[in-house]
Amino acid sequence: MEVLPGRPRENTARMLADLRTAQADGIQLIVFPEMAVPGYLIGDEWERTSFLRECDDCSRELCAASNGLVAIFGSVGIDWERHNEDGRVRKYNALFLAEDGALVGPAGGPYEFVIKTLMPNYREFDDSRHFFDLRKLAQEERRPVEALTTPVKTRLGLLGCALCEDAWNTDYGLSPLEMLTRNGAQVLVNISCSPFTMNKNHKRNRVYSTHAHHLKRPLIYVNNVGIQNNGKTVFTFDGASCVYDTHGNQVACGRPFEDTCLTLDIPVDPAAAFGTPVELRHDGVESIYGAISYGTRKFMDLCGVHKVTVGVSGGIDSAVVAAVYGQLLKPTDLLLVNMPSRYNSSTTRSLAKGLAENLGAFYAEIPIEDSVKLTQGQLHQLAIRGGGKKKGTLELSALILENIQARDRSSRILAAASAAFGGVFTCNANKSEATVGYTTLYGDLCGYLANLADLWKGEVYALGQHLNDSVYGRPVIPAGSFDVTPSAELSAAQNVDEGKGDPLVYPYHDLLFKSWVESWDRTTPEEILEWYAAGTLEQKLGYPGKLSGLFTSAEAFVADLERWWNLYQGMAVAKRIQAPPVLAIKKRAFGFDHRESQMGPHYTKRYTELKTRVLKR
Amino acid sequence: MEVLPGRPRENTARMLADLRTAQADGIQLIVFPEMAVPGYLIGDEWERTSFLRECDDCSRELCAASNGLVAIFGSVGIDWERHNEDGRVRKYNALFLAEDGALVGPAGGPYEFVIKTLMPNYREFDDSRHFFDLRKLAQEERRPVEALTTPVKTRLGLLGCALCEDAWNTDYGLSPLEMLTRNGAQVLVNISCSPFTMNKNHKRNRVYSTHAHHLKRPLIYVNNVGIQNNGKTVFTFDGASCVYDTHGNQVACGRPFEDTCLTLDIPVDPAAAFGTPVELRHDGVESIYGAISYGTRKFMDLCGVHKVTVGVSGGIDSAVVAAVYGQLLKPTDLLLVNMPSRYNSSTTRSLAKGLAENLGAFYAEIPIEDSVKLTQGQLHQLAIRGGGKKKGTLELSALILENIQARDRSSRILAAASAAFGGVFTCNANKSEATVGYTTLYGDLCGYLANLADLWKGEVYALGQHLNDSVYGRPVIPAGSFDVTPSAELSAAQNVDEGKGDPLVYPYHDLLFKSWVESWDRTTPEEILEWYAAGTLEQKLGYPGKLSGLFTSAEAFVADLERWWNLYQGMAVAKRIQAPPVLAIKKRAFGFDHRESQMGPHYTKRYTELKTRVLKR
Repeated sequence: MEVLPGRPRENTARMLADLRTAQADGIQLIVFPEMAVPGYLIGDEWERTSFLRECDDCSRELCAASNGLVAIFGSVGIDWERHNEDGRVRKYNALFLAEDGALVGPAGGPYEFVIKTLMPNYREFDDSRHFFDLRKLAQEERRPVEALTTPVKTRLGLLGCALCEDAWNTDYGLSPLEMLTRNGAQVLVNISCSPFTMNKNHKRNRVYSTHAHHLKRPLIYVNNVGIQNNGKTVFTFDGASCVYDTHGNQVACGRPFEDTCLTLDIPVDPAAAFGTPVELRHDGVESIYGAISYGTRKFMDLCGVHKVTVGVSGGIDSAVVAAVYGQLLKPTDLLLVNMPSRYNSSTTRSLAKGLAENLGAFYAEIPIEDSVKLTQGQLHQLAIRGGGKKKGTLELSALILENIQARDRSSRILAAASAAFGGVFTCNANKSEATVGYTTLYGDLCGYLANLADLWKGEVYALGQHLNDSVYGRPVIPAGSFDVTPSAELSAAQNVDEGKGDPLVYPYHDLLFKSWVESWDRTTPEEILEWYAAGTLEQKLGYPGKLSGLFTSAEAFVADLERWWNLYQGMAVAKRIQAPPVLAIKKRAFGFDHRESQMGPHYTKRYTELKTRVLKR
Repeated sequence: MEVLPGRPRENTARMLADLRTAQADGIQLIVFPEMAVPGYLIGDEWERTSFLRECDDCSRELCAASNGLVAIFGSVGIDWERHNEDGRVRKYNALFLAEDGALVGPAGGPYEFVIKTLMPNYREFDDSRHFFDLRKLAQEERRPVEALTTPVKTRLGLLGCALCEDAWNTDYGLSPLEMLTRNGAQVLVNISCSPFTMNKNHKRNRVYSTHAHHLKRPLIYVNNVGIQNNGKTVFTFDGASCVYDTHGNQVACGRPFEDTCLTLDIPVDPAAAFGTPVELRHDGVESIYGAISYGTRKFMDLCGVHKVTVGVSGGIDSAVVAAVYGQLLKPTDLLLVNMPSRYNSSTTRSLAKGLAENLGAFYAEIPIEDSVKLTQGQLHQLAIRGGGKKKGTLELSALILENIQARDRSSRILAAASAAFGGVFTCNANKSEATVGYTTLYGDLCGYLANLADLWKGEVYALGQHLNDSVYGRPVIPAGSFDVTPSAELSAAQNVDEGKGDPLVYPYHDLLFKSWVESWDRTTPEEILEWYAAGTLEQKLGYPGKLSGLFTSAEAFVADLERWWNLYQGMAVAKRIQAPPVLAIKKRAFGFDHRESQMGPHYTKRYTELKTRVLKR
C-alpha cells in the first residue's frame, strides 16, 4: 500500500477498506507494511502527544475491524507510563497483530504488540532518536532478548513477526528471525518501510532468501510504496513486497512502485511447496527512470503542484528534466523558458526551442540582457558612503557578472514566471555539479525539487537516451543536446561553438566524486593520491582511459584534485545547505543521507607528506 | 579550549602546547574536553578511514607527550578489528587518559580508553549513528555494565572518568557516575562537548551539583568553546568549565565563551574542603547577546568572511543584525544597503540611513523600482506559445509582485553588491517569521547566516534595547525602529505611516508559535483549541492580555490558528529547507535541532470534533 507520512487517519481509512475487501474474499491473513498508520520519515512529529494519541486511536480502530481474520500492520507502540531515554513518552516501532477484534502480542512479552529489535541509525534512518528497542527493553526487564523474541500464537499457527532491520542483522551479533524460529515460528513475516536505493533489492533478495532457506520457513516481506522525506532528502518506496518459499525462492513479487494487493496461498507446514519462483531483474536505467518519475509525480502531489516551469538552456540536464515532466503533465501544464544573454549560442537556443516543440509544451524566450545591464549600471562603480562622504566604489568582477546572470534567470524570471503560470519551477542540477558546487546559489541551484541531483552527469546522459529510446520512442531530446559541450554559457570563455565549456571532465570527475561520496570506503585525497602514486587509480576508480591523457604532470593532477576537494568540502557545503530538496536514487544522496558539517577542506598529514614525495619525483 | 571541528592536527598542536605549559608549571592533572581531537558535530566525516587514522595518530602523539603528569582528553576510540552495527569500523566516543607517556585504561576493561555509556540521540545529537556505546559492549562481552564502569588508577589516585551524557542519566535507568564511585573513584571527571542553550547551564549546574553532593566526590567538568555545526544549524559552545566540591558547590568556573585555563588545587581526600563557592548568574538578554555575538564572529572566521553587507529596511530585525556586526567589524568592513521601492516610506528610509550614520558604516541606497518595472514589463501579459501558436499569457498578481520586490533586493542587489564589496550578505529573518514562512524564498530568506533566526520577534526587540543600552551605551538603533509598525512594505496595504504592516500580532503569535516549536510538550491546534475552549489559553501561553481583545469570535480565533498552522506545517517547511544556516540559541532551533519532514498540515480527529463543538456554541 501507499503510506502517507503524517496522515494516520487517511492511512487507516485505506486499511479499513482493505480489511473489508479481505474479509469479503475469505482472506485469512492480511499484512500491511511497517509504520503503515503514522508513516516513518516524519521528522520530530513523534514528539507531539496529540499525534501519538491519534495513532493509538487508529490502531485500536484497525484492531476492532479484524473480525474473521488475522491482520498485521505497523504503527507506533506507545507505553504512556514509561519514558524513552530522552525523557519523552516511551515509543516503540511496533508490529500490531489483531485477530477477531483483539490485539495479540508475542508469548511472554510485556506488550500486545511486537517490538523492533534492531535499530538502523545510518543513512537516512534515525530510529534511536525516537524509538526504544527490544534490546533495551530486555536489559530493563532483566531478561534475555531471546525470551522476548517469541512468535505470536494465532488461529493460523505460530507467526514469527519482525520489522525491517530485524532481518538485516549481519552486523548486529544477533538474529531476531533465528530466535523466532527457535521459539517455534512456523511462518515468518517481516514488515518494512524500506526506501528504494539502486540495486538494494538485489541485496535484500540475498538477505531474505538466505533467511528463508536457512531457517526453512516461508517468509513474507511487505514493504510500502509512496514517498517520504526528511526535509532535504526525498525518498521513494518501491514496495516490491514478496514471499519466499522454504528453499529461498521468491515465489511472488509485487511490481515496483505499484500500490497493489498480492494474494497467495502459503502452507503453514514448512515442508510444503508453494508458488512458482519468479525471475529477478537487475536495476538499470529503467529503474532510475522509474524511481525519478514516480518520486517526482508523488512529490508534485505532496506539494499540490499541477503546473511546472523548467528553465531550458539547450543542454542535457534541463532537457532531461523537461522530458521527465513531459510524461507527468499535460503539455498545457508544462512551460519551458529559455533565457538567453549575449553569451548564449544560437546552437543551444535552437536546441531549447526544438525540445519544447518535441514535447508540445508551452515555450517562451525571455532574455536577461536588459536586466543584467540594469544591474551592472546600478552597481558597477557605485559610490558607497561612510560618514556622509564617498569612501569607495563597488566593482563588478567577471565572476560576479556570471553569477548575476544565473540569479537573474532563476530568482528574477523563473520564480515570477512559474508563479504567474500557476506552479513551481525546477532545479536541474546533477550530482556532479552539486558535489563541487559548480552552480550559483539563488541561481541555477534553486527550485522546488532537484530530481536529478542524485545522478552523476554520465547517468543523466543515459537517462536522456532512455527517455528518447524507450519512454518516448522518438528523439524528444534533440541529438544536439547530447553532443554539445556542457557549458554554463555565462562568459565568452564558455562558447560552445568553439567547443569551450565547463571545467569538469567526464567521466573522470564523475568517478572521482563518486569515490568521495558514494563508495562504501569513502575516499579522500589521501587514498586518491596513494593510488595515483601506485599507478592504480584508473583501475580503482574504474576509469576506462589513461590519466596521462588528462593530466600532463603530477602537479596538474594534484592541482585538479585539490581544486575540487576544496570546493566539495568548502563552498559547496554552504550551497547544499540552501539547495532544493534532492530526490534520492542511490546510496548517499545529499542532505540527510550524506550528512555534512561546514568545516572547510581537510587534508591529513599523510596526504601532505605523500604529496611532497609525489611532487619531488 | 576552543575545539575546531574536523581539524585533528590543529587541535592536537594546541593541546601539545598546553601540555608543555602544564609540565613547566608543575601541573599534575590536565583535562581537555570531549572530542577535543576530532571535534564532535562533523557530519559523516566519521566514515572516512583517513580521518580516523589521523585522529588515532594524534591521540598517540598526545599520549607520548604526557611525561610527568596525567593528561585527559576526548577523541574517537577506534577498534579496527571490530565493527559497528552499520558494518563500519568500530568507533567509540572515548576519553583517553595518558600518564607518563602511556595510555591507561579503566581496570578490567578491554580498551586503553574510557567509553561513553549513555548516547544522546535527541535535538542535534546523533551519537548512535557513529558510536558504539558501553552498554552494547557489555552485552557483547556478556558482562554487567558496572563491571566495565571502573575508575582509572593513576599516580593521583582512582579517577572516575565519564563523558558528557553519562552525567545526564535521569532518564536512562543507570548512573555511570554512581557506578564509578561504587567502584572506588576518588575524584570524578566529566569531559563534555555541550552546546550553549539558553538556561541550560542552570540545569547542568543542578545535575552536576547533585552528583557531587550525593556521591561526595569532587567533580571536574570540562567543556569546550567554539562553534560546530550540522550544516543547517550552527551551535555555539560556551565552555564554562567548572569544579564542584563534595558539598555540590561550584568552586571555580570559567567565563562563558572564553578559551581559558582554569587551575585549581583539588584534594583527593573527599572530606577535604577546597575552593570558594561561586555565584551563579541567570541567562538573560546578555547571554543571548553573548552567544549571538560569539557565534557570528566564529562563523565569519569559519567561512573566511571579513566584510559583511546588511540589507537595512529601517525595521528592527535588520537594525539589530547591523548593530551586532557593528561590534564585530571595522566600520569600513560593514556596508548597509537600503533598497527602496515606491512602497517604502520616508520614515523607514531615514531610519535606515540614521542607523548607518550611528554605526559609522558604509551606506548605499539602491532603488529597485526600475528593475521591478523591467520584470513587470517582461513578464506581465507575456505570450506563451505551444506548437508555435500563442496559447496563453502570464499574469502577475499582487502577491507575485510583492515577491518580485523581495527577490530583487536579495538575489539581484545584495548578492552582487556584497560580492563586489568583498564578502557576504546577511539573512535578517527572526524565528517568528521563519516558523510560518512569512518571508520570500530567494528574497529576504537568503544570505550566508541567519543569526537572529532562533529569536522570537519580542526577543529581537529586547536584544536591540540591550545593544543600545549596554553594548553601545547610546541609541545606535534609532528609536523609530522600535516604534514603527513591523512591515514588509511590499504594497500599499503595508503602509507604516498609516500604521499598517505585518499580519502577525505580537506577543500573541510569538507565544503561540513558541508553544508549537520550543515547549517540551509541543502543542498542536488540538491543545490550543482545548485551552481556548476551557478559557485557559492566556494562562497556558503566558499571554499577558485577553484573547477577546484580539479575536472578536471563535470563528476568528480558529481561522487565525489554522492560517498559521497551515503555513508552519506547509509552505514554511519548504522554505526552511532552502533557508540559510540558523544560529541556535535556544531549545529547538530549526534544522537539525527541530527536524522536519514536508508533509503538509495535519489536524487530529479530536481537533476536528472539538472545533465543531466550539464553533456551534
